[in-house]
Order: sequence, then structure tokens, then C-alpha cells
Amino acid sequence: MFKKSETQISKLLIANRGEIALRIMRSAKEMGIRTVAVFSEADRDALHVRYADEAVCIGPAPSNQSYLVGEKIIEACQETGATAIHPGYGFLSENAGFAQQVADARLILVGPSPEAMQIMGNKLSAKAAALKYNIPMVPGTEEAIKDIGEAKQRAVEVGFPILIKAAAGGGGKGMRIVEQVDDFEEQMQLAVSEATSAFGDGAVFIERYVTSPRHIEIQVLGDQHGNIVHLFERECSVQRRHQKVVEEAPSSVLTPEIRAKMGKCAVDVARSVNYTGAGTVEFILDENLDFFFLEMNTRLQVEHPVTELITGIDLVKEQIRIASGEPLSFRQDDLKINGHAVELRVYAEDPNNNFLPDIGTLKTYKTPKGNGVRVDDGFEQGMEVPIYYDPMIAKLITYGKDREEAIDRMIRAIEEYDITGIETTLAFGKFVMQHDAFRSGAFDTHFVSKYFNPESLEKADKQEAMIAALIAAQLFDQKESRQAGDKMIVKTSDWRKNRIKY
Amino acid sequence: MFKKSETQISKLLIANRGEIALRIMRSAKEMGIRTVAVFSEADRDALHVRYADEAVCIGPAPSNQSYLVGEKIIEACQETGATAIHPGYGFLSENAGFAQQVADARLILVGPSPEAMQIMGNKLSAKAAALKYNIPMVPGTEEAIKDIGEAKQRAVEVGFPILIKAAAGGGGKGMRIVEQVDDFEEQMQLAVSEATSAFGDGAVFIERYVTSPRHIEIQVLGDQHGNIVHLFERECSVQRRHQKVVEEAPSSVLTPEIRAKMGKCAVDVARSVNYTGAGTVEFILDENLDFFFLEMNTRLQVEHPVTELITGIDLVKEQIRIASGEPLSFRQDDLKINGHAVELRVYAEDPNNNFLPDIGTLKTYKTPKGNGVRVDDGFEQGMEVPIYYDPMIAKLITYGKDREEAIDRMIRAIEEYDITGIETTLAFGKFVMQHDAFRSGAFDTHFVSKYFNPESLEKADKQEAMIAALIAAQLFDQKESRQAGDKMIVKTSDWRKNRIKY
Repeated sequence: MFKKSETQISKLLIANRGEIALRIMRSAKEMGIRTVAVFSEADRDALHVRYADEAVCIGPAPSNQSYLVGEKIIEACQETGATAIHPGYGFLSENAGFAQQVADARLILVGPSPEAMQIMGNKLSAKAAALKYNIPMVPGTEEAIKDIGEAKQRAVEVGFPILIKAAAGGGGKGMRIVEQVDDFEEQMQLAVSEATSAFGDGAVFIERYVTSPRHIEIQVLGDQHGNIVHLFERECSVQRRHQKVVEEAPSSVLTPEIRAKMGKCAVDVARSVNYTGAGTVEFILDENLDFFFLEMNTRLQVEHPVTELITGIDLVKEQIRIASGEPLSFRQDDLKINGHAVELRVYAEDPNNNFLPDIGTLKTYKTPKGNGVRVDDGFEQGMEVPIYYDPMIAKLITYGKDREEAIDRMIRAIEEYDITGIETTLAFGKFVMQHDAFRSGAFDTHFVSKYFNPESLEKADKQEAMIAALIAAQLFDQKESRQAGDKMIVKTSDWRKNRIKY
Repeated sequence: MFKKSETQISKLLIANRGEIALRIMRSAKEMGIRTVAVFSEADRDALHVRYADEAVCIGPAPSNQSYLVGEKIIEACQETGATAIHPGYGFLSENAGFAQQVADARLILVGPSPEAMQIMGNKLSAKAAALKYNIPMVPGTEEAIKDIGEAKQRAVEVGFPILIKAAAGGGGKGMRIVEQVDDFEEQMQLAVSEATSAFGDGAVFIERYVTSPRHIEIQVLGDQHGNIVHLFERECSVQRRHQKVVEEAPSSVLTPEIRAKMGKCAVDVARSVNYTGAGTVEFILDENLDFFFLEMNTRLQVEHPVTELITGIDLVKEQIRIASGEPLSFRQDDLKINGHAVELRVYAEDPNNNFLPDIGTLKTYKTPKGNGVRVDDGFEQGMEVPIYYDPMIAKLITYGKDREEAIDRMIRAIEEYDITGIETTLAFGKFVMQHDAFRSGAFDTHFVSKYFNPESLEKADKQEAMIAALIAAQLFDQKESRQAGDKMIVKTSDWRKNRIKY
């Protein structure tokens, strides 16, 4: 019998749930590493619990009584003999305090140092670190401001429109756009009080508002021996409620020169905090293809699979190898982009109702298959999407030799995906994939607000039904002399709405 | 709304069933081509019927009353307005007479010309065509022999061991190995009478028997404009009952030089019959890495996905484009091998009972997911595997950045695959993937007969159960003071055999 390559980690605890817990376990399993799941009482029957070699219940459903309690997770390691923790994304994954606790307990965290997390966890200290390497920044204040007069003066210097951002914020919280100088004072006051109540920290900074921004991020990997590489970009400009819903790699607009320049900047940002593990450096790209540093996420991203598909690198395995102290097994020059990948986040949300979460039971749940289709999920038919957590059901990822094929495949996969009992973002995803602006690559982060309204989906639905009805009518006209028991079957283009006639 | 690229074919009939029918429809769908399924009465509820835009019943279950009746398939085209037929593999896919019927009906066959099919359909005419290009052949007779005395003389010249093969044969039927000259006459007589009864043609030829052969085949694509390229090799040496069960690409033994040489030979073989479409040139490789032409398959192969994964080319789409008259959109130099892919054919067969077909209902049927895993299948939970057709349930294909990763991923995927109600080749596949000979690459077509016996599976099963029991016992020892309602769960390494305890 063959021997697995040696690694320092022989049992890994995954401090997360849902699709990302399963995804991490799959890589661990392929490496011959035993896995420990943790779960809340609401997740007793979840797939990640069944998939792990062992599982430990860590408390009641609310995250702050289970998945967010560092002590319980460390205790679960000690009970099961797990020597390392993979935090996934969300929950404790970017909590520098938890990273320190893990280190103090002499366990390995699959992630960067507490120091790197801390610096990058705050927008201002992150900017300060990045500035050491002359990373381009959106013109604005370099330090937090609370004084309104001073802020106004800087705003005029930078030029309107202006963006006010909470220093401790994220996910669009505490962000305000100010179109003209007259509105500035009022908006500034609102921003400070919003930041204070949301984050307990009223510090904000201001920067030029990029009118047609694209969200481009660079994946980096750094080992414990000082090697840092980048794995090219992901474009995540299609967002709803300031949160990503469609991502792709590579971006349709970057030239090889800009890609190389952004890649180098991302590596420099990582180097500024001696970064180890997988991280993502986010940039904003304007209509002149000038890019500016936004922030660094010190963990695995939700959308990491598109990078895996175009580079052939399993990012979770690399994270684990790095955490084990292994040097990177490839250099920058070894990495190449092959083909194109697109990801759609399938949320339990109702696009017809402002993307509000729609919770319930997955009455039907059948995932698409075939060439170039990857589904990362944590559900089976009959399961319930619990109200306590992020309403993402799955990530649907398609790969093709080029962007057009990846998108065509995504449409096919969306049509094949069969979910009933709950509203999802699938039809919304199809709308995006079929939209001229998306297909041509001429879009920015305003895509959803600019082009999407619930009627778009209804219209597409009606059109499809009408075409199907027409075809059916024509065929029956041609065949009107046929008898019962006849061999013709007429079906619509949507295989879940077949009208089968024998 | 965007516009699909134009193609001559707007509606395609798929003259096949099961996984390959679905696989072809997926590509057609991605190209914006409408699909027509045909089905036998036994396949009324099959997935390929549901997945198609339209479906036509073509007769009773036995293939010779439905899937093998060319007239019914052509009639179904005429009824539905389909302008092209994709024959898949098996059934009518290599029937030159059917290809001619299709041409006569002014329909497009997604495949080569009737002439190319005819020449390559007979081993001797295939050899004769290939010889024009000096393709290496296993030393032996170049023409069919029926005279035993003449055959014996040639056999002595070529040297023993000797292989006697039916000229019209395939799949190992009518093949006999003769170890020494004394046995020759008896074996020759048996071979001729076997060939006569199986194929209605007693012609045989003889060739040197390669003691440690590997089965290597080259994928080719030729367009209607004289361009022919190869897409590298597949290794299919792991066979049971002379039929492939595990395939991979690339082969673990070819050097770049031999790969290029074999590739050129394959292109020449295709050129010898002005080949159009996707075809496969099969070679035998001996222990000195000398290769010899075996035969050409003039259709899509079962194992084509491994080539798709390492080249990024969708072979079915290329077939359709070629049949539409489009020139190939890439040249030989554009093609590169990226990573490694392995395929396991999941058959409804009992490896403990000489791989005899095991028919029944899929009580549980859950397919593996995640990075680098592709499942091409035609079943859902609760469906029956019908007795009338090939017992293949699915093709499980894994991709990795290198051979080791692809194999590790295959083991993970096999463990994740959950099939009950029927015996399958899954456990056998795991046996292969974990075997030193396979992992090291030092194997040949005798792999199964040399290493596998049903006890191998039982032994592995017992070992796994024992390890799980030991771990469970240890954990319970450590935790013996725990109460009911305790949070520990102990599970085996096989997630389908979990022992969950709360």
C-alpha cells in the first residue's frame, strides 16, 4: 500500500459549517488528514457533521454561543487530539484575538499570524502598511478623521464625488457617497454616528468616489520561508447590497501588463505584514484601468474556486501545507492562467423581494453535473436552510476554455439546477449571464442597480413560457392526426417544467 | 440579449441513451442547439428523455428493436425536424451502413464518412490503410489467413508467444494466445470456428504476443478542410474481461518524444482515410516503449472525458462544429497538457463474482462533489438499472495538478460516492487506486488478473472496520465518564457507515 506524503498535521478541526466546512474536509481527506467537525445544535444533521471523521457539538444555534466561541473550539481540539484549526471564512477566521488564543494553546491555525490579521483588519493600519511599498491608493485622507471642518477641507482638495467610510467597517456598512460640497457636513455627521453605533468607533476616512468602479482582487499565497506569490485576479463587480454574487477569473478587462502590476502590488501588500497562508488583496479599478488598494482579507475567500479552476492549484491544500511549515512547491513563473471560470452564489434569497433571505425546506434539490461544472454546497434534498446563518445554499462554478464557454456552461448549469421549496438567486444568475453588459464585459459594481429589477425575471419567464407554448402548438398542429399512445413528447426548454405526453 | 454563434445545426437528435446521451445534450445546450432524445419503452423514465427538449419513443426494450434500428432514428429526425444525428458510442455509432442511410436521407451524421468507418471497422483493411504511412505494426500476418499450415509457418517466423485474432472481432472476442508451437494447430482451429460463429467471418490474423502490453490510445480530431490534430494519449491498461475499467491521461510512462511520435502516427492513420470528426487510434506499447498500431475507433470513446480535462477542449462541441463544416479553431501547437485526469467506470457489476452484471434498483444514489470531480451518469436515486443495456452506471472522473493528486482525489470521491441496492465496481476502483503497482505506474493490461482477487476487497474492508473500531474504542475509553446527551460523535473513515452518538 502506498504512503502519503508526511505533514505536520495529522488531524484537522474545521471551525466552520456548511459548504466551506465540506470543501476543506475534502482537501484534508485527499491529503490523508483526519477531520474533526464542530457543530451547533441547529446543525446536528448537517452534511459537514456526517462527512467528518469525528464531530463535536459546541453549543446552541446562535453563532455567539457556538461557532464564535473560541474557547469551545480550542477545547474541541484538545478533546479530539486535533493539532490544527482551519477557520474557513466568516466566524472567527479574521479574529486576531482567536488567532492568539490558538497560538497560546500550542495549536496550529491554518491562517496568517495574529499580527498580520490585526494590521489588515483595520483599514487605516492596513493602508499605512501598504504605503511603505508605494501601493496606489484612492486619493483621500490617510488618517482617521473626526473633525468635520478638517474633513471638509480635504474633501474639497480631493474633489467630489466623495466617499465617507468607517475605519472599522466592512461589507458596505457605514459607507456614504457625497455628490457635492453642500451636502458634506450633514453626511459626515451621519457617517460618524453610524460608525459609532455599528462598530463602537466613530473614526472615518474620506476618499475620492470612483464613479464606475470594478472590484478586482488578487489571490496571494505566502509561506513561512518568505516566499510570496500571487495567483492572478478575480473580478467580483456583480454585487447586490454591496455584496458579491457573481465572480470570475480572470477579469475580462485586465491586460497582461496591468495584471502583472496588480499582482506585484498584492505581493508587496502581503510582504508588508510578512503574510503567511492564503490571502486576498482587494483593489478598485476605475474606467482608465487605474487601480487602488482597498483592503486585504486575511483568510480564504468564498470565491476562491474560480482561482483554483484557472490555476489548477488547490488553495486549501496549499493553506494546510503552509501551516505545516512546508515551503511553496512552485514559483511565480510556474503559475499560468488556463481557461476561464465563473461563480454564482446560490443564495436562499428572493430576487423579486430585494434579495431578502427566504428560509425553508429544500423540497427538491438536484445539482447540475457534467463537464466543467463544480458545485460546492452543504445541503441535500429535504434539508432545511436554517435561519441562524448566512443564507448561501451553494456556489455554482463553471469552467470553460474561454469566457464565452464558461458563461454558456453557467446558463446550462443554472437551467439544470433544480431547487423547489425556497426562492433562490438562480434565475437572477441567469439574468446576469444573458445580459449584454455582462457578456461584453462592459459592467461595473453598479450592474445590479443599473440593470436589474424584478420585472426582468418575470419578463424572461414569460418569454420562455411563450416560446415553449408556440413550439408545442406547432408540433401538435403538425401531428394533429395522432392517436393516444402516440410516441411524441413535447417539452419546454426548461427540463423542470416538462410537459410530457405519451 | 446576446447572440449565439451560428451553426448549421439547430436541432440535434441523440441516437443513444444513458450517460452519453446526457453528456452530448449538455454540450448541445451550451451551444444553443435544441435536442431530441430517442428512447425505448424500457427508458420512458430515463434522465436523457427528461433532459432533452423533445423525445421520441422508437420501440421495445431490446436494442435490435429500437436503438439499433436506423430507419426509426431517421424517421424520428424527420418528425421532429432534427437535421443532425449524434450516435454516441456503441449502438449504431460505427455502423457504416447507418452512416450511409443518414447521408442518403440528407441528414448530418456527427461522425466520419461511411468510407472511413468501413475501412477502420475491419482490422485488416485498417492495417492496410495505416501501412501506407509506415505506421508500426506488431509483427505478424498482414492478410487474413484460413489455411492452418500457412499460419503455422508464419507463426514460427514471428516467434512465440503468438496471438490469434478474428479479423472482424472486437472487445477480446475471438482472441487466443498460443504459448508454444505444439499447441498452435488446435488453437487455430478453435479461433477460426469461434470467429465464424461470432462474426460470420472465419478470417483471422496472427501476430506476436506482447508479454507486458500497455494499452495507449491517441485522440484525434479532423475537420472537413483537411486539418487533423491529436489531443495526446489516454492510458487504458487496467482492464477486466479485456474491457477498460480505469483510464487516465496522460500516461505515466510516455516521454515527450514518444508522445509526439505516437501523436504523429495517429494523425497519419486518420489521414489515411481522410478522417473527419473525433476518432481514437489505439496502440499497444511494449516494455521497451515500442508501440504498434492496434485499431481505430471511429467514434467518441467512453473515456473521452480524461482528454477533455487535460486539454480544456470539449470534444462533443468539436464534433458538432466539425459536422457543421467549421474548420478547427486550434492547431497542434495550441494544444497543451495541463494536469492529470483519471476515470473509473462505475459498473453495476459484482467484483466478488467475476464482475458479473448486478441489476436492480438504486436504493441510495449520491454522487461525490467538490474540486476536480466530474460525474457523468444517467441515474437518480430510486431508478432501476435496466437489464437490457450496458451495466455502466456512471463514469467517475477526477482531475488534479499531477497524477498523485488525481488519484488521491479519486479515492476521496469513491469514498464519497454512496450507492446501495446494487453491487458496483467502486470498491474495486479504490483497490486499484491504492495499489502500489498502479500508483507507481509499473503496470500493464494484466493488472487485474495479476493482483486482484475478491479477497483483496474483503481484506481492505476488514482493515478499515478494525481501524475504525480501534479509534472508537480509544475515544470512548478517554471519555468513559461522559453522560448521555454528551457531545462526542465517533465515526468511521467511511462517511456512509457513520456511527453517530449523541
